[in-house]
Amino acid sequence: MSPLYNDTLLRALAREPTEYTPIWLMRQAGRYLPEYNALRARAGSFLALAKTPALACEVTLQPLERFQLDAAILFSDILTVPDAMGLGLFFAAGEGPRFERPLRDETAIRRLAAPDPSAELGYVLEAVRQIRSALGGRVPLIGFSGSPYTLACYMVEGSGSSDFPVLKTMLYQRPDLLHHILEVNAQAVAHYLNAQIAAGAQAVMLFDTWGGNLSAAGYEEFSLAYARRVLRELRRECDGRKVPAILFTKGGGQWLEAMASSGFDAIGLDWTVDPGDARRRAGARVALQGNLDPAVLYAPPERVRAEARRVLDQFGALPGHVFNLGHGITPLASPEAVASLVDEVRTYSRAQRHAVPASRAAIPGST
Amino acid sequence: MSPLYNDTLLRALAREPTEYTPIWLMRQAGRYLPEYNALRARAGSFLALAKTPALACEVTLQPLERFQLDAAILFSDILTVPDAMGLGLFFAAGEGPRFERPLRDETAIRRLAAPDPSAELGYVLEAVRQIRSALGGRVPLIGFSGSPYTLACYMVEGSGSSDFPVLKTMLYQRPDLLHHILEVNAQAVAHYLNAQIAAGAQAVMLFDTWGGNLSAAGYEEFSLAYARRVLRELRRECDGRKVPAILFTKGGGQWLEAMASSGFDAIGLDWTVDPGDARRRAGARVALQGNLDPAVLYAPPERVRAEARRVLDQFGALPGHVFNLGHGITPLASPEAVASLVDEVRTYSRAQRHAVPASRAAIPGST
Repeated sequence: MSPLYNDTLLRALAREPTEYTPIWLMRQAGRYLPEYNALRARAGSFLALAKTPALACEVTLQPLERFQLDAAILFSDILTVPDAMGLGLFFAAGEGPRFERPLRDETAIRRLAAPDPSAELGYVLEAVRQIRSALGGRVPLIGFSGSPYTLACYMVEGSGSSDFPVLKTMLYQRPDLLHHILEVNAQAVAHYLNAQIAAGAQAVMLFDTWGGNLSAAGYEEFSLAYARRVLRELRRECDGRKVPAILFTKGGGQWLEAMASSGFDAIGLDWTVDPGDARRRAGARVALQGNLDPAVLYAPPERVRAEARRVLDQFGALPGHVFNLGHGITPLASPEAVASLVDEVRTYSRAQRHAVPASRAAIPGST
Repeated sequence: MSPLYNDTLLRALAREPTEYTPIWLMRQAGRYLPEYNALRARAGSFLALAKTPALACEVTLQPLERFQLDAAILFSDILTVPDAMGLGLFFAAGEGPRFERPLRDETAIRRLAAPDPSAELGYVLEAVRQIRSALGGRVPLIGFSGSPYTLACYMVEGSGSSDFPVLKTMLYQRPDLLHHILEVNAQAVAHYLNAQIAAGAQAVMLFDTWGGNLSAAGYEEFSLAYARRVLRELRRECDGRKVPAILFTKGGGQWLEAMASSGFDAIGLDWTVDPGDARRRAGARVALQGNLDPAVLYAPPERVRAEARRVLDQFGALPGHVFNLGHGITPLASPEAVASLVDEVRTYSRAQRHAVPASRAAIPGST
């Protein structure tokens, strides 16, 4: 393996000082990029891209060719694990992910088993190896999975939903069945992330897209408990270096204290969280990742830069911040806006580290 | 006007002691009730029900015939105001509300004007009068409107959305236009709620269904500032008694301190908020309304009762709690589950008020 030339992300996740605030963007390889759309058109579909290692590798590197990003993230889907369990992942035109065979009866649920990643998710592991090789140590590679709870939401409901009535019916009528699914999912996700790490992933992230649809007590019982179980099973070392783990629960800002005490190295924040408030509540226990409103990328360049500075000012130039959006970049974002964002974060955060703190500068005679 | 026989809701909203915790349910007149579906089928549509005062009155009273609820809420839609502004509210089969003429150009936005409620929303005011008469003082009547921001979301986007790209584009590209819409909306909503109060509404509520899609700073600038503007304009007196005002922002749990300082008498909480945490953060400034997960109503009766007790225990038997769901009741809820919920809240909260506090009972020899 090549040495890692830019380890800014890994140091920020470890809350070590960095020369500037590292930045990567959720879904940074995606439909806002013309070169992505061209490759996707040739491949025929999103899943064809994700399931063909050479194409997944090519797509993963596309945003790095354009922007000075501090990480690559594996191009894949959060639902590869239940797909490997036999549920049949597919995408209807213009819609989110769906399963052909959602979990609707006890027999199917009791039969559920964690897949062997090397056998059934080999295409992902091969993509990880190819990406690592293609990166040549430019930046670290982030591996990921959907969280046990978020996988269960799709597995039971069969698709995304505004309120997940089928999942919630199971949760309140047969919590034992949901817990069984979550146990299998936690084991499966741990095996899967360990296999990604063994293949070369240098950081890992759990995407808990739907944890925010739970009550406060339900979040602890059905989502966070199983995220912790995944974390406990991880063998977090790659190339002799610790592999940091990031937990992102969309809509989970109210539960930041619980997340910050969960053992994860970093917590992803959506754009509804006040960064200063998050700093105070999370304390020095974890790094924080986020949290610009993805819709800022619809704005003209000067507004993008101003909003980026606002987020950086709110987090403060303390160690332990990784700049990101508060959710995935959308197809409507402009590459020019992304270029402005990445440039502003690099430039402004570097300047922040050399600035005299305003509070000190304001004291008369304190030169 | 008849005297008000059950004023438990109004006393709880004023944080005065009550014999039990009052309960009403968002969307309590709705599709989970067979008698509602029958009347809606006869009327032809939801909007026909809402726009015919006698039918709106009949539907408003339906849940009170079945359950011991402590309030009636006007049967109407949150989007009547922009409909009266000429945007053309309609409902496509199986979908949420839409506008025929969403606000997409500056000319239309600059032409926007607050409607005269007595002329253009007379059907709502007539419904309020008929409901008050039909209630005969059994329980108070709650009037309502969508919040200025939530109205703007629908007015600009033209429909509900998972991420409101058109609205967000305006917010970041032309905030001046969005502020203009919000100013007109605030004036229109204030006039509308004042007219509802004059017609007999004894409490009013602002439904800020989409405020939770904003950043923390954006919530203050685009939603809360205009909710406060509405509040300042209200003439809050009906039948010689103060008309309390409730603010509900779905997804707003993180901003509870700001909401609690806004001047509203009560804050509605969605089901993601931890009630004990909310009590600590809101202090004694406001009453709190909520916050059972609406999906609990898919559970068997004993589970419904247990979850109701959990919410009551978390709020504690202090003055200033109004029991409600954390969002509207869904068509999948069973009337039997609602009956169990209403009975348990009444019975258990009454018992709570007579119980020896557990902490005191646990002290040995302190009889």
